[in-house]
Amino acid sequence: MAKGLLTADAARSLVGSVDAFLFDCDGVIWKGDELIQGVPETLELLRKLGKKLVFVTNNSRKSRRQYSKKFKTLGLEVTEEEIFTSSFAAAMFLKLNNFSPEKKVYVVGEDGILDELKLAGFECFGGPEDGKKNIMLEANFYFDHDKSVGAVVVGLDQYFNYYKMQYASLCIRENPGCLFIATNRDPTGHMTSAQEWPGAGTMVAAVSCSVQKEPIVVGKPSSFLMDFLLKSFNLETSRMCMVGDRLDTDILFGQNTGCKTLLVLSGVTTLPELQDASNTIHPDLYTNSVHDLVKLLQQ
Amino acid sequence: MAKGLLTADAARSLVGSVDAFLFDCDGVIWKGDELIQGVPETLELLRKLGKKLVFVTNNSRKSRRQYSKKFKTLGLEVTEEEIFTSSFAAAMFLKLNNFSPEKKVYVVGEDGILDELKLAGFECFGGPEDGKKNIMLEANFYFDHDKSVGAVVVGLDQYFNYYKMQYASLCIRENPGCLFIATNRDPTGHMTSAQEWPGAGTMVAAVSCSVQKEPIVVGKPSSFLMDFLLKSFNLETSRMCMVGDRLDTDILFGQNTGCKTLLVLSGVTTLPELQDASNTIHPDLYTNSVHDLVKLLQQ
Repeated sequence: MAKGLLTADAARSLVGSVDAFLFDCDGVIWKGDELIQGVPETLELLRKLGKKLVFVTNNSRKSRRQYSKKFKTLGLEVTEEEIFTSSFAAAMFLKLNNFSPEKKVYVVGEDGILDELKLAGFECFGGPEDGKKNIMLEANFYFDHDKSVGAVVVGLDQYFNYYKMQYASLCIRENPGCLFIATNRDPTGHMTSAQEWPGAGTMVAAVSCSVQKEPIVVGKPSSFLMDFLLKSFNLETSRMCMVGDRLDTDILFGQNTGCKTLLVLSGVTTLPELQDASNTIHPDLYTNSVHDLVKLLQQ
Repeated sequence: MAKGLLTADAARSLVGSVDAFLFDCDGVIWKGDELIQGVPETLELLRKLGKKLVFVTNNSRKSRRQYSKKFKTLGLEVTEEEIFTSSFAAAMFLKLNNFSPEKKVYVVGEDGILDELKLAGFECFGGPEDGKKNIMLEANFYFDHDKSVGAVVVGLDQYFNYYKMQYASLCIRENPGCLFIATNRDPTGHMTSAQEWPGAGTMVAAVSCSVQKEPIVVGKPSSFLMDFLLKSFNLETSRMCMVGDRLDTDILFGQNTGCKTLLVLSGVTTLPELQDASNTIHPDLYTNSVHDLVKLLQQ
């Protein structure tokens, strides 16, 4: 398949050679809470052509259930089973690694992570609640922590603070064998439609710096999510296409796992960035937005 | 001079070969608000021997004036002119680089940075005040920022939050030529006597990840502080000894700038860490605490 701009021929060849499309959400399906133009028609056409659709997002703020509701609000019928979030991936990572239900999970992140952990049967705390807590950096203050915490999960957290940074650090540093899990390391994301905001990567960078240790990443571009996805569906990665707006997560994830890759320019990555000499990540194909797939296939 | 444990001979040779001692504070002079044993006697003896004493701290939470008060509270007579903080270094960096007084400075940090910037004549905002501000990550929310901000200074900040992370990111990313200055990159520090806490490095890591840019570091181990210090005093680095408890800031700073180096084990670094095969930073000499200098010189 030719590398480069998506043409009518390339679109037909792509659709003919894959059984499943994996879509990133933010910057591909929507921006903040606004649907990107042409998405409903694209998904409808691909479903008609018998393609399996999977939605893979690094955004850990919501659970799969909450994402399914968001799709519905935007007029799209997508089931929970078709959605893979990095919050769900964190819970599945613990499950597949036989994390003891006797141990607790400390969460630097939002409700999506807490919800998925609870659904998977794990006891967890932290999250938005600890965003209200303050630190007293005074002479004889001693900050205690729960010794039964066996994993810290760090994701995007608009309630991030010094309290959580220290709580997470103490668990990772002082509880023997405590896991340090990052939902993802995206530096930024379109948390609102108008602007980019600091992503989970910023919280992960802060905690990682504090404990001087690298986390286990479960979201894109880590292959953990794909391994889990392949276990859930009967699919071959060579017959999948990853569609995303980020080179360092989506496209790298697709390449790391052996998928075909399609970059859309409706999100974070711009054409000059893609074509810049310093860029080392090249998708198989690129186009302005997923809408082009429909337009080109109908030519 | 022999590399290794400080002996009576090595102590005499060291004191004979230097005119000035540069002391790190946290982990060398005090831990949190507790004076480390033997410090008054050590400083007194070195002053008697005619040595110049300089106190160089990466901790940006206080201004030089506030540090001078802290020394007094602990029973030590140290003038403002003998103190070099990373907050003061940030202000001096802007001054020496002719930062326009028409422009503003946004501060991710505490009062020490705001105070030093104001003393140097710069208009600044942010700091603890912005620690009370919240973000609304809602659909049509647009986060505005001051286009006249020409520098962002990031230091240790117990009031760090998502608001400041985004404010700093917008200034650095969108204001043409906006400087990104880090007081220092220490991953941790003894903010209280009982425990280590996340250091300025964690805030710097978060902002640096968000903007995908490296900061200008003005504190240790950057040589900026030393260049400024040499301009202020008539000293030669080959006749100085840097005394510190951290390999990656204090000892590296001393080595980067051509000083003799003495590691004390009264703070962050342990003997096994110093002697670990993975450690690449080796001080000229090491000992338990500064008190040993007095004990050995009086043998």
